Amino acid sequence: MITELKELKKRIEEVKKYNHAISILSYDFETVCPKKGYEDEASIIDFFSNEAFKLMNSKEMKELIVSLYEKRMEVEDELDRKLIEKLYKNYLKKKNITNEFDLEMNKVFSKAGISWLKAKKANDYSLFKKDLEKVVEVTKKAVLLREKRFDNIYDNMLDDCEEGILTEDLDPFFDSLKKGILNILEKIKNSKHEIRTDFINRKVPIHKQQIFSDYLLKLNGFNFDKGYVGQSEHPFTTSIAKSDTRLTTHYYDDMFLSNMFSIIHEGGHGLFMQNEREIDHKHYINNSVTNGMHESVSRFYENVIGRSKEYIHLIYPKFKEIFKEEFSDVSEEELYEAINIVKPSLIRTEADEVTYSIHIIIRYEIEKKLVNGKLTCDEVKDEWNKLYKKYLGVSPKNDSEGILQDIHWTSGFGYFPSYSLGNAYNAMYVKKISEAMDFKNEILKGNFKKINRWMSDNIFYYANVLTPKEWIYKITNKNLTPDDYISYLEKKYSEIYRFN
Amino acid sequence: MITELKELKKRIEEVKKYNHAISILSYDFETVCPKKGYEDEASIIDFFSNEAFKLMNSKEMKELIVSLYEKRMEVEDELDRKLIEKLYKNYLKKKNITNEFDLEMNKVFSKAGISWLKAKKANDYSLFKKDLEKVVEVTKKAVLLREKRFDNIYDNMLDDCEEGILTEDLDPFFDSLKKGILNILEKIKNSKHEIRTDFINRKVPIHKQQIFSDYLLKLNGFNFDKGYVGQSEHPFTTSIAKSDTRLTTHYYDDMFLSNMFSIIHEGGHGLFMQNEREIDHKHYINNSVTNGMHESVSRFYENVIGRSKEYIHLIYPKFKEIFKEEFSDVSEEELYEAINIVKPSLIRTEADEVTYSIHIIIRYEIEKKLVNGKLTCDEVKDEWNKLYKKYLGVSPKNDSEGILQDIHWTSGFGYFPSYSLGNAYNAMYVKKISEAMDFKNEILKGNFKKINRWMSDNIFYYANVLTPKEWIYKITNKNLTPDDYISYLEKKYSEIYRFN
Repeated sequence: MITELKELKKRIEEVKKYNHAISILSYDFETVCPKKGYEDEASIIDFFSNEAFKLMNSKEMKELIVSLYEKRMEVEDELDRKLIEKLYKNYLKKKNITNEFDLEMNKVFSKAGISWLKAKKANDYSLFKKDLEKVVEVTKKAVLLREKRFDNIYDNMLDDCEEGILTEDLDPFFDSLKKGILNILEKIKNSKHEIRTDFINRKVPIHKQQIFSDYLLKLNGFNFDKGYVGQSEHPFTTSIAKSDTRLTTHYYDDMFLSNMFSIIHEGGHGLFMQNEREIDHKHYINNSVTNGMHESVSRFYENVIGRSKEYIHLIYPKFKEIFKEEFSDVSEEELYEAINIVKPSLIRTEADEVTYSIHIIIRYEIEKKLVNGKLTCDEVKDEWNKLYKKYLGVSPKNDSEGILQDIHWTSGFGYFPSYSLGNAYNAMYVKKISEAMDFKNEILKGNFKKINRWMSDNIFYYANVLTPKEWIYKITNKNLTPDDYISYLEKKYSEIYRFN
Repeated sequence: MITELKELKKRIEEVKKYNHAISILSYDFETVCPKKGYEDEASIIDFFSNEAFKLMNSKEMKELIVSLYEKRMEVEDELDRKLIEKLYKNYLKKKNITNEFDLEMNKVFSKAGISWLKAKKANDYSLFKKDLEKVVEVTKKAVLLREKRFDNIYDNMLDDCEEGILTEDLDPFFDSLKKGILNILEKIKNSKHEIRTDFINRKVPIHKQQIFSDYLLKLNGFNFDKGYVGQSEHPFTTSIAKSDTRLTTHYYDDMFLSNMFSIIHEGGHGLFMQNEREIDHKHYINNSVTNGMHESVSRFYENVIGRSKEYIHLIYPKFKEIFKEEFSDVSEEELYEAINIVKPSLIRTEADEVTYSIHIIIRYEIEKKLVNGKLTCDEVKDEWNKLYKKYLGVSPKNDSEGILQDIHWTSGFGYFPSYSLGNAYNAMYVKKISEAMDFKNEILKGNFKKINRWMSDNIFYYANVLTPKEWIYKITNKNLTPDDYISYLEKKYSEIYRFN
């Protein structure tokens, strides 16, 4: 068994090299690859992804995994056992997927990525539709190839993104969240309080926004010796290697808030990645957390901290210094209110905290139908526009601010709920951090060392070895609920909008 | 034979995928990889370089190459034959190099690259010395493994960089060049003409320099749909793929000329790469030109065009517009003279056109001794400082402006002469372009379409299929000579410095 374990690790070490390269290639693709180089570079990424797949999916590797899984109780090191269990779960999902099908699937995703970008630039969903159909088709086919699977196809995709949290959990979760949010929205609609917004679309030179980004990231504790910030169409964060965490942002010269909160959000992912346990890396179980767990952290930094009165107080002097030409007439209070203005709108990533989850609920409802064959790619755009009208009362002027705004569907389904789950998780654990320290005061003082240390010890520490349900229970002694999230919104926005 | 050729191309297609990935990884390494990620990323690059080496060096591949080489006269397509000959030449050099030795060699280079960077930052040659010794050792060992080789070890390295141009060519070439340049330098020293330089170290915000870079590159014909500009310690250009050419520059806020001429220089390489023949790509013989041929083009754009009176006249209005806060008091004539000021100095990449080749000659003399065992790595720093004192009358204050300034020796020897050869080549062919059009007037008009078209048809066209000696003869009907280069300098600088 020890020989087998050694052999397994040797093989994983090799796969890791491929994954490291693929991460860099993908980062390069999203950040700097010139337009006419897309196709060639995408085909290179597909090729190496398939090589990595072949290594993981080789007969020898499969036999090793199955054999070690059968003997897992004899494995002494708990993290070694976790690794074996993780690989076995993955094995069950992938065992019937041939190398050829894997390559085909990756090609479908790459092609969809390219056509999505073109379609978005051309404001034309029809340029993306055929590729979306193919994504639906191959991802469903991949699920149907599993021996063990949930009857509801979408549940399998949800499980891939957020292990153990399925439609039976999400239906009531979103139902109750939707009611809570629409109730708050109604109160805000009736509020007489006016928030000043005239300055938020002022032109702000990109180079100043870059200085501001770097300031915020450093303040929040991001380590630039182990990280980098690039630019891409859609902001994201990726863990390239143990000491290499890469973020991206997108600068708009007439929407400085977009970069500001992208950077705090992605910086949150980055802090999570930069603070994984050394021992998890050694056991190859780093980066085993679910999307929702990750989003809970990024949205904790973005919203709970970044949109708080205390954080704005902390950064206001620097804000005034950097943007003295642009925002000399904006008070701290005005800035705080402007970043928290609630306004039903079209773009998820620009949405305020209250309406945000409505964007997610719309995607959840659509995905569920799309994957389960209750909605076609021909109908999806109308459904999108219908739901936006119904829940938020807004209608996209064009496809790029509607159905084409997110990249996610170029490579599958089931990710979106993670964002709202992230909010629900962090609303649950913010109570814990508030018990452990005078949380708001630490933000006010900019004591991110203390905050990040608590996050490491309590939130990051077990994240790679527990399922989301186990993890949130371990942190809070409670099961997943949207209630804390709703209360958090209710409290914060009743103060801002002076209701209740 | 047709089957073999097909098989060969199939295999090269696969190697190409590896090389494509390695180029991106290397570009990433130099431009965005965070400090603490260096080691892991370098090891990934080494791994994939070695995988590529294994593919090229496999028994089957070697047999294919040898077999096809023997039958090359039957191959109908001339470019297919060129490919076979190119591969065979490479085969002869590499056939006795084992995969293990290749990996070892790459590791030595990567390690040297990292220690060079550290040493440069710490201004301490001793941190790099041991790794330089290893580079000397492995590159010599690689030469000694060749069955067919020149007796003089350094000649083999020169031949790798500039096929067919060896010490027997370079000794008299540099001798005569040195005399010519020192003669011009003496006249300049005696000139009474004063050039205004007070403005060249003024602070210039990086973001303005970026705007200026983009303007210059676009003006010169660089296609941003097929290219990108990043930032690195040492500017370079790399051909990632057919439609993906990447440059880098380095911005200094107190040396705007550094970026300006780096970008024109690297842009020249970029134009060469962006204009290779489609048919050369199809036959996998793209990028077969020598360094000197490439440098002739980059230095043609940098010096012959970029430092000309006509080019400065062309860009002056934009220069004034972008830098209105910084350079409103600088006239066109003053700018022209400042970019052409001749002043013996320490840094090769910042050197003027006249002293530039002296920097090369110093490196040539040192390399030749170092590789042939007539100088040790212990002595190389003193030799460097001694030659700078002797030829240019200057002495480095520290190692990073002396022996540590260039990255080249982290991966071998023989490249430096290419720069001066490049100057000599372009001084020879600038006569041809002047016969074909009113060259100076086309610069004045900014008609880079016409200039670049001529370059494509005459300079780039045969570059992948001819040796440097064949190529320069085909273009100019003359053999390589430093005379045109010396005359070019004599004429230009006698006007600027009012001598003769």
